[in-house]
Amino acid sequence: MERALTELIDRIVPVDATWLAKAQARLDSLTKPPGSLGRLEELAARYVAIREEELPALPRKRVVVFAADHGVVAEGVSAYPQEVTYQMVYNFLRGGAGINVLARQVGAEVEVVDLGVNHDFEPELPLVHRKVAYGTRNFAREPAMSREEALKALWVGIERAKEAVAAGVGVLAAGDMGIGNTTAAAALGAIFTGRPVGALTGRGTGIDDQTLRHKVAVINRALSLHRVDPHDPVGTLAAVGGLEIGGIAGLILGAAAARRPLVLDGFIATAGALVAARLAPAVTDYLIAAHRSAEPGHQVMLDALRLQPLLVFGMRLGEGTGAALGMGLLEAGLRIYREMATFAEAGVSEKA
Amino acid sequence: MERALTELIDRIVPVDATWLAKAQARLDSLTKPPGSLGRLEELAARYVAIREEELPALPRKRVVVFAADHGVVAEGVSAYPQEVTYQMVYNFLRGGAGINVLARQVGAEVEVVDLGVNHDFEPELPLVHRKVAYGTRNFAREPAMSREEALKALWVGIERAKEAVAAGVGVLAAGDMGIGNTTAAAALGAIFTGRPVGALTGRGTGIDDQTLRHKVAVINRALSLHRVDPHDPVGTLAAVGGLEIGGIAGLILGAAAARRPLVLDGFIATAGALVAARLAPAVTDYLIAAHRSAEPGHQVMLDALRLQPLLVFGMRLGEGTGAALGMGLLEAGLRIYREMATFAEAGVSEKA
Repeated sequence: MERALTELIDRIVPVDATWLAKAQARLDSLTKPPGSLGRLEELAARYVAIREEELPALPRKRVVVFAADHGVVAEGVSAYPQEVTYQMVYNFLRGGAGINVLARQVGAEVEVVDLGVNHDFEPELPLVHRKVAYGTRNFAREPAMSREEALKALWVGIERAKEAVAAGVGVLAAGDMGIGNTTAAAALGAIFTGRPVGALTGRGTGIDDQTLRHKVAVINRALSLHRVDPHDPVGTLAAVGGLEIGGIAGLILGAAAARRPLVLDGFIATAGALVAARLAPAVTDYLIAAHRSAEPGHQVMLDALRLQPLLVFGMRLGEGTGAALGMGLLEAGLRIYREMATFAEAGVSEKA
Repeated sequence: MERALTELIDRIVPVDATWLAKAQARLDSLTKPPGSLGRLEELAARYVAIREEELPALPRKRVVVFAADHGVVAEGVSAYPQEVTYQMVYNFLRGGAGINVLARQVGAEVEVVDLGVNHDFEPELPLVHRKVAYGTRNFAREPAMSREEALKALWVGIERAKEAVAAGVGVLAAGDMGIGNTTAAAALGAIFTGRPVGALTGRGTGIDDQTLRHKVAVINRALSLHRVDPHDPVGTLAAVGGLEIGGIAGLILGAAAARRPLVLDGFIATAGALVAARLAPAVTDYLIAAHRSAEPGHQVMLDALRLQPLLVFGMRLGEGTGAALGMGLLEAGLRIYREMATFAEAGVSEKA
């Protein structure tokens, strides 16, 4: 499995700057002062360069939401009980969650993947059943996963990207559901960025000051216990990560290998991006950071990936909700690229 | 005309905070941690409070683009020739401009109003023909408009808001087209905020350093010449403003009087908002600042209005392009408000 991963990673190459320049040349021929649509132009140029198509069609969009539970909730680090993870999966399947609403608005499909929810779902549910375990183990006491389990989670993400691309999806987003997952994401963030745990740890779904101090202490204890090597991303993911975070990292790798952009959501998705980027640094060329979360550690992670978020909306729900908004903005850029008249077509005078 | 304006202004009252609280109570019952959708929640609550409806329908949207020319272009303050104003009006009518593209994405109608373009449009064009003059006069030498002309422009905006509301429009945006209008907007901004001209003046469509210095000098000269009273917003608009800026100010007043939100675009639209807010301070409760423009003076104006922009995208095209993006984000907030399941409906456990 690790050898296949290496082969996939080798296929992920940086975006060709000549394509960015080619896209910008078209953008500059449109009836507006050069550069005057700012980040919309940047999004359009990035998409064109990733796809290497002169006039790409508006892409089909898919948000893949990975769900899994976390053994570390036994330490009392979350404001919500663990059962919320599976309850929210049912909410996703009925279309009542935030991600369903925002995906509908931008015309994106939502796919829900059970990678490790502590619940037996009915086999007939329209859910991608890929349970690796009934949640991770408590990483404050033992590794969250075996290396094998971490690799399995990564491969499910890679498989979901392949399946999406085969179905004609042009742009992907990764979402998450997992009570306790900001604790795992903060641990991964601290290891991969080298910054103190306190700088990566926030209130998640809404814990109080005392619980926040406890959460930092739990993560610090875990980092002392495991002494992971940040140059071994799979080992780090196994030690303190989450199954859904592995799935997200895999989806990112799979998207980049297939030359599809991935719109990044918030804190959890970006922890997955850190794993992916440590495996294949060129993936950052395929990432569009949709927003900066209210979780303070998110900016630390985005800085490490050198990504500038599109929105700063104080959001902290996860599920891919911020990414869905980002997909709408990406489409706005692409529509500008495709649909605006050029100076020549419109008979408008150019700059004096 | 001034008395009718006073009557309209008296109808503009602050938004009732009890409606904001009522909307937040519904938002807090939805399957997400309280407040976790950040500014989307704020947008939804604002809309509900403006409309004073418990569960408002998704509103019909309209962008009104006001076009007019500026005599001050004789001073050589713009990178593009004046003919671009009327050429772009034709581009709007054919659907090839940036605002057409972005309005189509969010399902907004585009209405184009000729308030003062230096061109005779064919009467059969699907344009709202309300030409007050063939552009303003050169305010570096004489007042841009008479008080009468400024009031006429305001009333056209008020009329367009009334017509939109009568047609069932629930949310409005104001756009602009007018070569030279960043010079007028900077002059208005300096007068209404009391900040130096240099802090309000930028490169507009893309002038060089030397032209930028010249632009600042032209505005400073005009301010010495006219010695306007910032407590007389109509007189200030007449002295150094623009017909399209008057139209925008009127649209804002008309929207607020009819309890409809107005999504604010960039530098020019915000200059119009300053005029409106100096006439009726409560209009700011009805304004949603879509973005912060690349034009540096825009933030100075937004600060004066105490508005926080949704997007910082480096955009500087005008036309209502940023506002169209803002309309999509407002709709996202409203969809969350309307379509998400509550904890009770979804059977999801609440915070421990």
